[in-house]
Amino acid sequence: MRKPLVFQSDFGMSDGAVSAMYGVAYGVDPQLLISNLTHDIVPYNIWEASYRLIQTVSYWPEGTVFVSVVDPGVGSTRRSIAVRTMDGHFVITPDNGTLTHVKRMCGIAEARIIDETTNRLKGSSESYTFHGRDIYAYTGARLASGIITFEQVGPAVDIGSVIELPVVEARLEGNTATGTIDVLDVRFGSLWTNIPREMFLKTGAKYGDKLSITIENDTRTVYRNIITYARSFADVYVGEALVYVNSLDCMAVAINQGSFARAYNIGTGNSWRIAISPFRGF
Amino acid sequence: MRKPLVFQSDFGMSDGAVSAMYGVAYGVDPQLLISNLTHDIVPYNIWEASYRLIQTVSYWPEGTVFVSVVDPGVGSTRRSIAVRTMDGHFVITPDNGTLTHVKRMCGIAEARIIDETTNRLKGSSESYTFHGRDIYAYTGARLASGIITFEQVGPAVDIGSVIELPVVEARLEGNTATGTIDVLDVRFGSLWTNIPREMFLKTGAKYGDKLSITIENDTRTVYRNIITYARSFADVYVGEALVYVNSLDCMAVAINQGSFARAYNIGTGNSWRIAISPFRGF
Amino acid sequence: MRKPLVFQSDFGMSDGAVSAMYGVAYGVDPQLLISNLTHDIVPYNIWEASYRLIQTVSYWPEGTVFVSVVDPGVGSTRRSIAVRTMDGHFVITPDNGTLTHVKRMCGIAEARIIDETTNRLKGSSESYTFHGRDIYAYTGARLASGIITFEQVGPAVDIGSVIELPVVEARLEGNTATGTIDVLDVRFGSLWTNIPREMFLKTGAKYGDKLSITIENDTRTVYRNIITYARSFADVYVGEALVYVNSLDCMAVAINQGSFARAYNIGTGNSWRIAISPFRGF
Repeated sequence: MRKPLVFQSDFGMSDGAVSAMYGVAYGVDPQLLISNLTHDIVPYNIWEASYRLIQTVSYWPEGTVFVSVVDPGVGSTRRSIAVRTMDGHFVITPDNGTLTHVKRMCGIAEARIIDETTNRLKGSSESYTFHGRDIYAYTGARLASGIITFEQVGPAVDIGSVIELPVVEARLEGNTATGTIDVLDVRFGSLWTNIPREMFLKTGAKYGDKLSITIENDTRTVYRNIITYARSFADVYVGEALVYVNSLDCMAVAINQGSFARAYNIGTGNSWRIAISPFRGF
Repeated sequence: MRKPLVFQSDFGMSDGAVSAMYGVAYGVDPQLLISNLTHDIVPYNIWEASYRLIQTVSYWPEGTVFVSVVDPGVGSTRRSIAVRTMDGHFVITPDNGTLTHVKRMCGIAEARIIDETTNRLKGSSESYTFHGRDIYAYTGARLASGIITFEQVGPAVDIGSVIELPVVEARLEGNTATGTIDVLDVRFGSLWTNIPREMFLKTGAKYGDKLSITIENDTRTVYRNIITYARSFADVYVGEALVYVNSLDCMAVAINQGSFARAYNIGTGNSWRIAISPFRGF
Repeated sequence: MRKPLVFQSDFGMSDGAVSAMYGVAYGVDPQLLISNLTHDIVPYNIWEASYRLIQTVSYWPEGTVFVSVVDPGVGSTRRSIAVRTMDGHFVITPDNGTLTHVKRMCGIAEARIIDETTNRLKGSSESYTFHGRDIYAYTGARLASGIITFEQVGPAVDIGSVIELPVVEARLEGNTATGTIDVLDVRFGSLWTNIPREMFLKTGAKYGDKLSITIENDTRTVYRNIITYARSFADVYVGEALVYVNSLDCMAVAINQGSFARAYNIGTGNSWRIAISPFRGF
């Protein structure tokens, strides 16, 4: 039975870094089933790394090991951590907020600090800048292949101690759902919000309804208009905006065959707020 | 025996979409041999998706399953289709023109509409926007692994009903071969035409001959010059243009270590025409 | 036992070229363990291809076969070569300088010219422009899978005949180490020099020391300043420059969470020189 090992980083694929990680992992066990989540995380963007994990983890078989290396603090005292989720996936990463969404949305069943004295590639050099290869890929491969148990990764720590980035919760007030723009569907310029479909439906909206959309960045209103709530892109004209349920079961905003983000210069993060309500006049 | 499954899309590799497809497919069968054709198809560009398939399919073993998801009509009534080619490859895709080149150049032996009631990832959500994961990757994995037969994909349909994009045929008139510029060899800026080597050779040209090249975009002449017909790039100077036979056995135009497309602002599609003939003065 | 086969090229991943190579290789043996080093080598940049190999090769198990295709001379009389390194890795490539670093740093135990009459994909067409698919991927797959022995690749040649690009050696003069800027860590804008850690340490520098750095491009001084020698990025402020030991055990220069290369317009190659010495005033 081949065990899946999935790599994510902000290294890009233009040099040899990711391939060195593959080499180390296949050196541990050539039967591993290695693939990439993405290596195009914006450099140092821990939030995005956290989000891409939640976009993917639940679609993989139980026992899959994810290794995520976005690590602005490499060489600092930040901990190296491994967690087992409630659904039986494993994630190995610097403990810097990368587990924010996994902790909140999947739930963490157990957390362990990597013991770097035993879980480090033999002969890894005097370099202190490539833990992705020397510690994370190596330990992930040994865990996925069953050479070490989860217990052998290192000592257990309190789940509450796993670092989380600040999150602004989606809310329903009257018939208005408000939330943040968490991330872009990069290639298509769609906005992915943190408003769950189920919360949104409590506004009473149905497919085909017109919705009032307001997008603010801090104190500035960036967008205020009326958009159709559509089952999918094909329900609106080419070039028309739509609100839809994305592949994570949250509300999203797009332009059919255009880029909403580029059209209105929309960014992501906690300072980008969106409010959605059934249209009854502004 | 491990079965190859090849994914193509316009999703890019910067988020978790492709990895979610991998997860679903490995969840079906961890013995699958999954890899990517490309995920950099220009968003919504069905023509390019069709062309990249033909560039690749015939180099894969019989029985390989290709899943191609460029799907501007996701959520519409466009059909989801699976075909078996004359050479025994399978392609699963929205029926929107993605099979244009496969149908014309490989030939389709059998076409079936995907029955989405039985061939859909269990528990796939209320989202109607990610059929690539919930239907195509899932069905492709089940077909590749042998869990379902081709018949179980869904009901057979007439091959003639498989949608084709309009194609302008290459032609020979006197000693002039004319055709369209179908696609760019993106990284090297070469123009790939639809003029087959065999048709071109009927112009009487031999390696080393000078050729008259005319490139027109609609009514405008964009390029008119004389270029050497070379066996390969090494036969001309660095910076010199050449006409050569590309890896699909069609005629192509390039600048050795430069970009022909960028040098002359050449695009692709049916409005971009090229005429090639042995040089006897303009 | 699955055998690793690693591909590198300047083809990019936006078309079907790499997938055609995968298809040919899996057609030889579906048990192969195929992955990518990178396909983003700058077009025709043999130096970079050579460097990315050395960044990766030693992290892969003995017996791994690397296929590297950066081939400005495709179709010329340049030889196709396969080498076995001192550590038991194999590299198959055009003999155009791609083996420069492998030859110098790993050492070549044996070199053989590919006999293209026996080692060429059956039925590969009249195209002379895609040796990556028709010869290199095909031969690499047959060697990795054990269908042919290294001897069957073709006749042995003198190791001295393997082509090398010119290299400027790092040097120590007094307490100043000088070298070239070989390559960028692309995504993070760090400069990777050819000055080995061990040579640098002979300057007497210790972690935390201030270093004088001078960077010159030909006759022009591009950068001259004082930078801290740090164990890793976390030892300096965000936005502060540092000198550190990179993952190849050579000296590197970076800005913590910034891009040194972009900040000062630094390039790579033999005309880019760097001098490092303990700071005692300029």
